[in-house]
Amino acid sequence: MKRIAVFTSGGDSPGMNAAIRAVVRTATYHGIEVYGIMRGYSGMIKGEFVRLDSASVSNTVQKGGTILKSARSQKFMTKEGRQQAFDQLVNNGIEGLVAIGGNGTFTGAMIFEEEFGIPTVGAPGTIDNDLYGTDYTIGYDTAVNTALECIDKIRDTADSHDRCFFVEVMGRDSGYIAIPCAIGGGAEIVMIPETQMSVDVVIDTLQTGWQRSKTSFIVIVAEGEEEGNATNTAARVKEAIPQLDTRVTVIGHIQRGGSPTAADRLLGSQIGIAAVEGLMNGMRNVMAGIVDKKLVYTPFTDTINKKKLINQSFMRMVEILSV
Amino acid sequence: MKRIAVFTSGGDSPGMNAAIRAVVRTATYHGIEVYGIMRGYSGMIKGEFVRLDSASVSNTVQKGGTILKSARSQKFMTKEGRQQAFDQLVNNGIEGLVAIGGNGTFTGAMIFEEEFGIPTVGAPGTIDNDLYGTDYTIGYDTAVNTALECIDKIRDTADSHDRCFFVEVMGRDSGYIAIPCAIGGGAEIVMIPETQMSVDVVIDTLQTGWQRSKTSFIVIVAEGEEEGNATNTAARVKEAIPQLDTRVTVIGHIQRGGSPTAADRLLGSQIGIAAVEGLMNGMRNVMAGIVDKKLVYTPFTDTINKKKLINQSFMRMVEILSV
Amino acid sequence: MKRIAVFTSGGDSPGMNAAIRAVVRTATYHGIEVYGIMRGYSGMIKGEFVRLDSASVSNTVQKGGTILKSARSQKFMTKEGRQQAFDQLVNNGIEGLVAIGGNGTFTGAMIFEEEFGIPTVGAPGTIDNDLYGTDYTIGYDTAVNTALECIDKIRDTADSHDRCFFVEVMGRDSGYIAIPCAIGGGAEIVMIPETQMSVDVVIDTLQTGWQRSKTSFIVIVAEGEEEGNATNTAARVKEAIPQLDTRVTVIGHIQRGGSPTAADRLLGSQIGIAAVEGLMNGMRNVMAGIVDKKLVYTPFTDTINKKKLINQSFMRMVEILSV
Amino acid sequence: MKRIAVFTSGGDSPGMNAAIRAVVRTATYHGIEVYGIMRGYSGMIKGEFVRLDSASVSNTVQKGGTILKSARSQKFMTKEGRQQAFDQLVNNGIEGLVAIGGNGTFTGAMIFEEEFGIPTVGAPGTIDNDLYGTDYTIGYDTAVNTALECIDKIRDTADSHDRCFFVEVMGRDSGYIAIPCAIGGGAEIVMIPETQMSVDVVIDTLQTGWQRSKTSFIVIVAEGEEEGNATNTAARVKEAIPQLDTRVTVIGHIQRGGSPTAADRLLGSQIGIAAVEGLMNGMRNVMAGIVDKKLVYTPFTDTINKKKLINQSFMRMVEILSV
Repeated sequence: MKRIAVFTSGGDSPGMNAAIRAVVRTATYHGIEVYGIMRGYSGMIKGEFVRLDSASVSNTVQKGGTILKSARSQKFMTKEGRQQAFDQLVNNGIEGLVAIGGNGTFTGAMIFEEEFGIPTVGAPGTIDNDLYGTDYTIGYDTAVNTALECIDKIRDTADSHDRCFFVEVMGRDSGYIAIPCAIGGGAEIVMIPETQMSVDVVIDTLQTGWQRSKTSFIVIVAEGEEEGNATNTAARVKEAIPQLDTRVTVIGHIQRGGSPTAADRLLGSQIGIAAVEGLMNGMRNVMAGIVDKKLVYTPFTDTINKKKLINQSFMRMVEILSV
Repeated sequence: MKRIAVFTSGGDSPGMNAAIRAVVRTATYHGIEVYGIMRGYSGMIKGEFVRLDSASVSNTVQKGGTILKSARSQKFMTKEGRQQAFDQLVNNGIEGLVAIGGNGTFTGAMIFEEEFGIPTVGAPGTIDNDLYGTDYTIGYDTAVNTALECIDKIRDTADSHDRCFFVEVMGRDSGYIAIPCAIGGGAEIVMIPETQMSVDVVIDTLQTGWQRSKTSFIVIVAEGEEEGNATNTAARVKEAIPQLDTRVTVIGHIQRGGSPTAADRLLGSQIGIAAVEGLMNGMRNVMAGIVDKKLVYTPFTDTINKKKLINQSFMRMVEILSV
Repeated sequence: MKRIAVFTSGGDSPGMNAAIRAVVRTATYHGIEVYGIMRGYSGMIKGEFVRLDSASVSNTVQKGGTILKSARSQKFMTKEGRQQAFDQLVNNGIEGLVAIGGNGTFTGAMIFEEEFGIPTVGAPGTIDNDLYGTDYTIGYDTAVNTALECIDKIRDTADSHDRCFFVEVMGRDSGYIAIPCAIGGGAEIVMIPETQMSVDVVIDTLQTGWQRSKTSFIVIVAEGEEEGNATNTAARVKEAIPQLDTRVTVIGHIQRGGSPTAADRLLGSQIGIAAVEGLMNGMRNVMAGIVDKKLVYTPFTDTINKKKLINQSFMRMVEILSV
Repeated sequence: MKRIAVFTSGGDSPGMNAAIRAVVRTATYHGIEVYGIMRGYSGMIKGEFVRLDSASVSNTVQKGGTILKSARSQKFMTKEGRQQAFDQLVNNGIEGLVAIGGNGTFTGAMIFEEEFGIPTVGAPGTIDNDLYGTDYTIGYDTAVNTALECIDKIRDTADSHDRCFFVEVMGRDSGYIAIPCAIGGGAEIVMIPETQMSVDVVIDTLQTGWQRSKTSFIVIVAEGEEEGNATNTAARVKEAIPQLDTRVTVIGHIQRGGSPTAADRLLGSQIGIAAVEGLMNGMRNVMAGIVDKKLVYTPFTDTINKKKLINQSFMRMVEILSV
């Protein structure tokens, strides 16, 4: 393998730059040339290729976002688009790809490989942590810490005013972000997609707390929670317990940005190295991940079809700790 | 003066604890006893008094929120409520008050003084910075820095995805928070109550930028902006420029909390000292503030009736810097 | 078991309060009374016991340090001291202990148990991460992130001035803190006790970089590194490469403090719960830890005698990434 | 004026990039071309000029350090060096300079103007805040907040272990950084060059506190304090009060880096604009500053010869607040 390319695709996440840097330097270390593809599959089709060397990624490991930018591409979902992408890769002499993203990204890479034979090794870059094949995804730890810092600030004002805050954190399909935010943020209740807690249970819990003369509360709501988001839940709670002074905060995109934590820089670096060395060893259609401290390569078919279940013991922890 | 009391009222703000600590230690330094009144006027009526000494305020200067808690009191707006408050103060031997809050707080104090003769010196505690009689209010600097840190994170993701973010910051009646966020956050546009910029101007500016191949934008919207909040503005912009990938983030109550900045700890300390020494010197119905580095006491009638205008040159700065 | 006590001992670490809170609330949840012992074994001897209930630990999960304080006790190393400690526990009806600390703490607990039969379950509270029986110790993740934030700031000025900084991080016997700081901080070299890299190698590496027209460098030095600390190393490098503009920063005790990260709050909580439930299940002389996401109890004899080796692949990572 | 250049010189400080950005965009706004000179006077002599346009400074306002780098130049202190610098400027068509730095920088600019007539307007870029002609220098607010965050972390561990920490902050000739760190950090004592407090007074104060059963202390020492730095002071205190558990932390270069605070971004922006518009209005040998919220231009002779005295009332504040 003489020349490879790296790109980021799907939602950006902190630590992607650490992964890009590791890809570039590992390739350089092994005498392989590296190109960056701007804006994911969209840039691959348009031929937005940039030669990257060791110096190109200096002073990037601490940066949020992705220096290669990200975008969604409708065109890559068509055979014609993929043909153009393939032509661009061939014209630029690219023999292998490192794709940093999530399952949407990997699905595209897998179809592409079947059609055109270009091998891809994936790196799990998403704040959601809902990818099978790795304990943590790149960006997850930072997103949780960012959300938690916001919750710490909210607790200051919740406590000063004896209020009940409903804080919505990211996580469309899972409570991975919500759970540590609830445990680490001293929340009374956490509502996550996995458990489908009814608003009635929330109301009961708050009412019990109120009667025990607890005066301020924090309820963490994952954005994908079944019964409705933070705003709806807060409205229904307010109706049921009018004396409660309720407020809503949606943390939103703040969770996507910021300088990556040590854990995300380390993970991004480990996986970036592993992705390049995986390609060198002839791997394709696999995602590099860390499971139980060990490097593992998981077939895209597994990352896409298998579900990484949230540790059920965490729900019990929230219950015990809000006693 | 043998014994005074201190309380916080209205919205909490970072640095209130620095002010409380300064009040307690200054009084102690001068041989005056201090009580803390919990939950503002509400606690004054109910007699929620706590004896504070030097040790009570150890390790509080760095804390967000207010250790004395805050609340709004309907009852203090009645003569009967104020009579009860007065009785409580008399029973506890309180001869003077330090009120940390905003104009609502000071209005109450002024009426109370007219009726019952208890002198109050005020301290400007609000994140909004819209109080006449001081260059900065306690909490303002922290709120701006908190909002700015959020905007920095948003810029990471805005830039990675070529998006246009509408970020709503606090400031119901003024652009004091929005302006430094726009200048320091590298925003293209800032919408504040003072200028009533129309959404059409926003659309024009974004369209011009887009044509100059600028791909990511940040628009700061003060929550009190005339034409509608961030969500409405974003919707109208999206309608006018459909190719723009718009997103909205409302920073909200996160801005109220957090450990105070150095400036807010210093200001809270200066004003806390000044408030006590003002009371000792026979002052009443005045707010202690810092104007042009000098300590000034401004009559409540002025802080309530006069308006501190935002520096118009800042609007020009935003225009120049987003060139 | 009707009543237990919890204490912190040895160097403090961020997340100890999360563990204390979890101990208190778990005991409360199971109907067991909890006492806090101030200042570790020293307070145990003196009888500094405080009744803790659920409210005692409200709003502590985000705090650095330990609300129970820590101290070293010479007296507990004597039989007489331990007898006094035992008497205090008996007088207070304490039937089991949760000891948050490191191997010094556990050694004391083990001797104490042999002599007096009071069972102890340990929780790994130290920033050093050098305890066998858990992947991470409570406080480690925060210390690494704190050091990394310092290094990020140093890189700003190193880069602006084309300087070579030697940054000393904590880790008397191991490179656990130094390694992720080097990888995540974009350092060129890392000197840790495990590898005994000679200063000559450091000089060679810097000289090679200098010749490749690299102008700013960061060298991470673990405080226990064999050849001498950052200051000595810097002096020897300066002698060998006089044109290099060298500077030294010792991060020091800053690494011990600060609000714990999400990971440390979560870990402290998990282990605090496990410690109490371990005691309830009749365990003694074991440390609760998390290994490969699973809760494990490791005998004190193992935590004390076995060594948790640093992942050798990390050294290779530093080499590849500084290409 | 058709073309100007901007450079940074002396120690770097956070907010310099905000000033550079403002210079570039203001010039662009007024139709003036801008060049950046790398590495201050050194780069001016060598001709390290870079054309800067609006896009060159995108996404820099939040970055620490200086994108133009800084260096000290022996050669510029010679007539020959300055002749070369002048030739480079003439060859590049530069008609005016914005110099971001301190008095060393301005002295060079003044001599240069006398000899060669190239006008310079200065911008006060230094963390030390010891420049006459501006209330605050660019970088000061960030440095204070960085130091204060470190002190907050140190207080966590000081308090947990009942220790006395001597924390050395920057400020070779003044206590500008030390004072707000002491007030905002809850320090018991502050040693600054201006007051020449003897170590005996430090010992007395600590002994008095100790007898009042105070157990943890923080002493802030400005690096330029007369009696010796933190390490020496700590040693002498330990000798006098052996029961005190003393520790030393030197915050050092960490204070120079980091993302600038809102205040520094705003100040850098204001002054960057003012510098360009000053040049356009024919000014030379003046520094732009903000005094009492108003823009002022102060002759270099004044910034160099006059001393900005520290507010004496701050020393009294430390005394009162540590009661």
